[in-house]
Amino acid sequence: MNYAVILAGGAGTRLWPLSRERLPKTALRFYSDQSMFQIAVSRLAPLFTPEQIIVVAGRGHAAVLSEQVPEIPLENFIIEPEGRNTAPAIGLAAIHLAARDPEARMAVLTADHHIGDTETFRRAVAAALEVSLNDYLVTLGIAPTEPSTQYGYIEQGPQICEIDGFKVFRTERFVEKPQQERAEDMLEQGNYSWNSGMFMWKVSAIMLEFQHQMPVLHRALQQLQVTLQSSKSPSRENEEYNRVLAEVWPSIPRQSIDYGVMEMARKVAVIPVDMAWLDIGNWSSMKVLFSQDESGNAVKGDALLLDSRNLMVVGGKRLIAIVGLEDLAVVDTDDALLICPKDRVGDVRRVVAQLKESGRTDLV
Amino acid sequence: MNYAVILAGGAGTRLWPLSRERLPKTALRFYSDQSMFQIAVSRLAPLFTPEQIIVVAGRGHAAVLSEQVPEIPLENFIIEPEGRNTAPAIGLAAIHLAARDPEARMAVLTADHHIGDTETFRRAVAAALEVSLNDYLVTLGIAPTEPSTQYGYIEQGPQICEIDGFKVFRTERFVEKPQQERAEDMLEQGNYSWNSGMFMWKVSAIMLEFQHQMPVLHRALQQLQVTLQSSKSPSRENEEYNRVLAEVWPSIPRQSIDYGVMEMARKVAVIPVDMAWLDIGNWSSMKVLFSQDESGNAVKGDALLLDSRNLMVVGGKRLIAIVGLEDLAVVDTDDALLICPKDRVGDVRRVVAQLKESGRTDLV
Repeated sequence: MNYAVILAGGAGTRLWPLSRERLPKTALRFYSDQSMFQIAVSRLAPLFTPEQIIVVAGRGHAAVLSEQVPEIPLENFIIEPEGRNTAPAIGLAAIHLAARDPEARMAVLTADHHIGDTETFRRAVAAALEVSLNDYLVTLGIAPTEPSTQYGYIEQGPQICEIDGFKVFRTERFVEKPQQERAEDMLEQGNYSWNSGMFMWKVSAIMLEFQHQMPVLHRALQQLQVTLQSSKSPSRENEEYNRVLAEVWPSIPRQSIDYGVMEMARKVAVIPVDMAWLDIGNWSSMKVLFSQDESGNAVKGDALLLDSRNLMVVGGKRLIAIVGLEDLAVVDTDDALLICPKDRVGDVRRVVAQLKESGRTDLV
Repeated sequence: MNYAVILAGGAGTRLWPLSRERLPKTALRFYSDQSMFQIAVSRLAPLFTPEQIIVVAGRGHAAVLSEQVPEIPLENFIIEPEGRNTAPAIGLAAIHLAARDPEARMAVLTADHHIGDTETFRRAVAAALEVSLNDYLVTLGIAPTEPSTQYGYIEQGPQICEIDGFKVFRTERFVEKPQQERAEDMLEQGNYSWNSGMFMWKVSAIMLEFQHQMPVLHRALQQLQVTLQSSKSPSRENEEYNRVLAEVWPSIPRQSIDYGVMEMARKVAVIPVDMAWLDIGNWSSMKVLFSQDESGNAVKGDALLLDSRNLMVVGGKRLIAIVGLEDLAVVDTDDALLICPKDRVGDVRRVVAQLKESGRTDLV
């Protein structure tokens, strides 16, 4: 059986003040009536039924997400005691799927990316799941449109095959977020894709890689797997599972799947896809999702802009009047307001950190 | 008898969103627990008793101001049917004072100026009232501290006398708000003062000037004067007065006392005063009234500023977080927020005008 695993944890501090710790970032409605999570789920149909969709998130976050998409069965929400990056989260999903079906394949997906061409997305996921039958770990690559320094890159090696019009390449190398010059080189060379963070593989294949490359994680997963096999009750009511999870989880190293597994894995393939993809990581990147006026201002809410250009304004309940400014993000909520140049939106993390430090937990 | 006449009308659109049409600008509490009007009144004691303080304002504004300073008798609030600039307002006050005392002298004062050294202010007003006994129209000049292009200037002629340490000069000329170069010249020459808009004169002297220079205004004032003399009831209950006022007021030309009278008057004196005076005309000028942090940020309310300098932040009920910005005014209220570079604060008028045009009267 094929499963979609959506990694939906993460509070997204860079999207403060709209994002808050108690809410998963993907539960927010930034640019649509639907939350990013709802959008991520709805673009999976008809490739996956709700029963085939697994969600990994913290307990509080899972409750919020489950309310937003009640058609996903409650037992498909897998609880992380705390976020420890993507490798442990994927491992947790993997053992749950293995308990259901040892032959399961999984598509690891994100909910905080925008995908404009969902039809192509679904076809690419289906193609990648085909490729994974040959024990490949498959990454969806994104055909780069600019020399971005915000994404990791994947170098394509020799072509393996072509499926449904998608060329499948062996992966030569993963490149971390590059400097500007290196990014320009890679764009020019043409045989690089952005790393989308979306992966397709057999559960058995990724478990084997965990065993070789992340033995501490693998051992913890094995301990958990035993508790799942010895019981018929779903994990949320399985006391032994929950006891072991609470015990082993803190000892698992925080690690991303990219660094922990992909870079050194043996059979890795990449499928470059052109699907109007966008990482919604901060206020600046989100701007393109809004319709813009002739001065390049993207506005949600009530705003009066005079002599202003390239603003990103997300309003709350009040009028926002701006005179003579450019390239700012302005985000207004009931209890907090953010004003920040678009090239400094990464520093919104620092605002949140400082609020936390000063004990203003109501605002973070 | 000496009287203080405070011109308290005016909505001060450049101080939007704190200032609103329904409120006189001087009723606002910008930088103190007291409103600018309350501050203006309290700095007059002990030079003037509350009975000696006359306030000219629109009907709605007068009600608000009267509530703020109940010790001023209700009949001392003189109602302008609508603002027609300073000359008509002063004329209206003049006939009311003439009805009380044909020998009355008046000090025309403002409430939207900050005066740091109130002791010197009171001594200067007293000195100017002395000088006015010789039928001079006296202006308080402000010793200029910078080549400002925001103020009118007064050129000093020969010295007339010295009173209580204040040098009194004949006025050579009134100069309108100058260009930068001209302002620098005048500062260097040293014989120029800023025009403070504060004047002291005999009621009879200013009425004579109205007669010569502003005949339409003078005729209207004479018609009103008749209704005051023929009745013992105060003007607010004097039906005849109110009927004539409503009739003549719209026909009076809008004119400032500077252009309408002072520039061409025959006996004009200026007393340069150094009293830490500041025109609170817009958000930028107000900044110096706030205490500032080491980066030059002036904050009222709840703000978290990262890598930011020379900001003027007037908060409402919410946290305002600002990252990496300089030289902005940010003013937050329950229903409207303003963000504007400090050198563009004059354009706040345009915001208000645009809101009015689009029918958003709740916000102006």
